[in-house]
Amino acid sequence: MKAFQSVAVIGLGSMGLGMARSLMRGGHEVRGCDLARDALEKLAAAGGSAFNTPAAAAHDADVVVVVVVNAAQTRAVLFGPDGAAEAMKPGSVIISSATMSPVEAQEFAARAGEHGVLYLDAPISGGSARADAGELTVMASGSPEAFSAAQPALDAMAQTVYSLGEDVGVGSSFKIVNQLLAGVHIAAACEAITFAKRLGLDISKVFEVISKSAGNSWMFENRIPHVLEGDYAPHSAVAIFTKDLGIVSELGRKQSFPLPVASAALQLFLMTEAAGMGQDDDSSVARLLAQIAGLELPGMERSN
Amino acid sequence: MKAFQSVAVIGLGSMGLGMARSLMRGGHEVRGCDLARDALEKLAAAGGSAFNTPAAAAHDADVVVVVVVNAAQTRAVLFGPDGAAEAMKPGSVIISSATMSPVEAQEFAARAGEHGVLYLDAPISGGSARADAGELTVMASGSPEAFSAAQPALDAMAQTVYSLGEDVGVGSSFKIVNQLLAGVHIAAACEAITFAKRLGLDISKVFEVISKSAGNSWMFENRIPHVLEGDYAPHSAVAIFTKDLGIVSELGRKQSFPLPVASAALQLFLMTEAAGMGQDDDSSVARLLAQIAGLELPGMERSN
Repeated sequence: MKAFQSVAVIGLGSMGLGMARSLMRGGHEVRGCDLARDALEKLAAAGGSAFNTPAAAAHDADVVVVVVVNAAQTRAVLFGPDGAAEAMKPGSVIISSATMSPVEAQEFAARAGEHGVLYLDAPISGGSARADAGELTVMASGSPEAFSAAQPALDAMAQTVYSLGEDVGVGSSFKIVNQLLAGVHIAAACEAITFAKRLGLDISKVFEVISKSAGNSWMFENRIPHVLEGDYAPHSAVAIFTKDLGIVSELGRKQSFPLPVASAALQLFLMTEAAGMGQDDDSSVARLLAQIAGLELPGMERSN
Repeated sequence: MKAFQSVAVIGLGSMGLGMARSLMRGGHEVRGCDLARDALEKLAAAGGSAFNTPAAAAHDADVVVVVVVNAAQTRAVLFGPDGAAEAMKPGSVIISSATMSPVEAQEFAARAGEHGVLYLDAPISGGSARADAGELTVMASGSPEAFSAAQPALDAMAQTVYSLGEDVGVGSSFKIVNQLLAGVHIAAACEAITFAKRLGLDISKVFEVISKSAGNSWMFENRIPHVLEGDYAPHSAVAIFTKDLGIVSELGRKQSFPLPVASAALQLFLMTEAAGMGQDDDSSVARLLAQIAGLELPGMERSN
């Protein structure tokens, strides 16, 4: 395996652009594709080559990293018109990082195989700052050949790569379980901090005490500072969790498995989206509850 | 304030007995009361004096620590027949540690005041091992006089005492917000790990990966090992959370504040209690879900 690869990054949002930068810093040649003009300009400014179609970006690449929003977009950029798969050379590998159900990952791996292309089921975790720093966590499954072909690119993008076996779908399943917990913990953190406000507590003090107590979670510690600062600029948007808990919920139904807590959390994110905050930070669930209950959190102006 | 006090501990369950031992190790004279004969014997074996009524234990004590199950028991041992409050001397202090609503804490403080007795609203967190080690966390509010009178006893029992102001009820409110999160996180952890099992994942690996990811919580890390080991001996019982999330839920209703995620979690604990596991470890929510879905977790024998 070549130490320096030609890597196409399909999807140059906050995650994809950070991953592209990390790949370049790792010495790789980076090509990219996105529907947004300004994303392509940012890639070019960082030293990458911009292309208008997935096929053009993927042509002759050793690795194609797909970092789009969901399974439908992954299907389109890989197998739709001007899709990457047809343009890829035999033995090259797709690193598929969108959150999706294991069934879809398996479908995409099979279709990639028809093109002689390897497929790594490789959802990511860590946020845009860690994408920029090349410090993502990757939950990956796939054949030894796929892991081997993807290794140099993974080394540049990730701090931790969990190798979860040869079966495509396992990586996606791990990510889904993680998102179930992450989504519930954000919703619960927002529910708890607004309830604390209703009880008349000093919510900064609540944050200080709970983050050192048995009620703490990674998400409580990470998101509640947004609420305390009244800053709802999206680090990760509400719409990401209506999507990801939607995948969780649908997979639960398909598996006939009840998920009452995750379902309650999904409904809170849907309410927040319905109230017009879908593109704001996911801690906006706290704003929604404060609006409903007539509470004034930092950064919220009373409308009456 | 005397450095060594006469302290009565009312309620000698796993928490109260540990606190009594820590008080004795700290040089205090400890008197105790409990309905259970063997609890009194354990106290005597550890060097404490056993009494049959709260009044007898509290007579001439500088501090009365109340570590019973709930507000109703607290009311009974303080103000019922042979209750502690009547027997206490003026200027002595009640450290009230059961989880209860802030309104009840305020009622008890007012009634204590009628007896010339100080009252510290002081719920605890940390579990029986930390009670034994004198390393509890205390979320306390009350008058400076109450804090001052309680200080030597608190020093012996707690690693961290959060001083949350002069208003009785604030300590209880902090504890309730903590229990909301703790309960949701246990229920979500159990939901996620059994869903992972349904998806065919290696749940030990799921624990390893998630506990280092954004889906982690203090409770996920603490409780899921019980599920992996199939050990449902109660560190903390399901019934504790039907009680504590019940308090959360009732307070939410009284405050007209919606708590959809906490309510879903409460229903899971109630289902687990209804299925006969109320006195088992609270991670039994995972066993309930596994039973419902016909999954075999460690330590579960298939019944057919």
